[in-house]
Amino acid sequence: MTTPAYDDANIFAKILRGEIPAVKLFEDDAVLAIMDVMPQTEGHVLVIPKAASRNVLDADPAVLAALAPRVQKIARAVKTALGAEGITIMQFNEPAGGQTVFHLHVHILPRFAGVELNRHAGGMAKPETLIPVRDRIAAALAAA
Amino acid sequence: MTTPAYDDANIFAKILRGEIPAVKLFEDDAVLAIMDVMPQTEGHVLVIPKAASRNVLDADPAVLAALAPRVQKIARAVKTALGAEGITIMQFNEPAGGQTVFHLHVHILPRFAGVELNRHAGGMAKPETLIPVRDRIAAALAAA
Repeated sequence: MTTPAYDDANIFAKILRGEIPAVKLFEDDAVLAIMDVMPQTEGHVLVIPKAASRNVLDADPAVLAALAPRVQKIARAVKTALGAEGITIMQFNEPAGGQTVFHLHVHILPRFAGVELNRHAGGMAKPETLIPVRDRIAAALAAA
Repeated sequence: MTTPAYDDANIFAKILRGEIPAVKLFEDDAVLAIMDVMPQTEGHVLVIPKAASRNVLDADPAVLAALAPRVQKIARAVKTALGAEGITIMQFNEPAGGQTVFHLHVHILPRFAGVELNRHAGGMAKPETLIPVRDRIAAALAAA
């Protein structure tokens, strides 16, 4: 039942190291928030702690304590920017739990009544379609 | 886009006040964890901060910082106790976001490859069916 070891060849580790690009929304000492390139809905954001862990199961509790208020701040900005009626927050641990990239991350999804989400890790969005949405959320974050 | 005011007539507030029963798993100064009475899978746990907020959007950031490590601790125990292959963590904000009880809570769901979850807030479980599972998770928490 132990969590497998962290492998720093995962895509979020590469984004954190600047080896591959991402549409970045927010960054501070503790987290990087990016637009999900396989969005389940417009405005789908990922909040990624900079500290290395595979998922919640092996994370440093202090990393989780720092992560949660940042998820809140970004969730509020996503809701405002998209004019969303609700927010769904999801966090997946291990493949059976829905995890597809093995560096801890939290999904923030703006929601509208009666609108279902797309499948997790479904189609790939063109980065240029993500940038205008990122800009709206960044403006809401700056105004918060 | 503001969050509606907290209403302390919700079912989790009543459970926190001891006005209605629940199958309690864990309690400390910050949270109460109970078995979800409408489980999406066996071992479905809810972690409920004692502090009043409607959801993540209006919560005190310090409450979220205290909540996250407790969710981790309980998620690990759920995984161990159920022999689960993964854990899905979900948190719903406002009806469009999936929320049905308007006091902040986090869902912890043990997962197995290829096994889908039941619908959120689907059928009601008999409390006596929840108690043996609660006891297994409590034993894993005590041993952690």
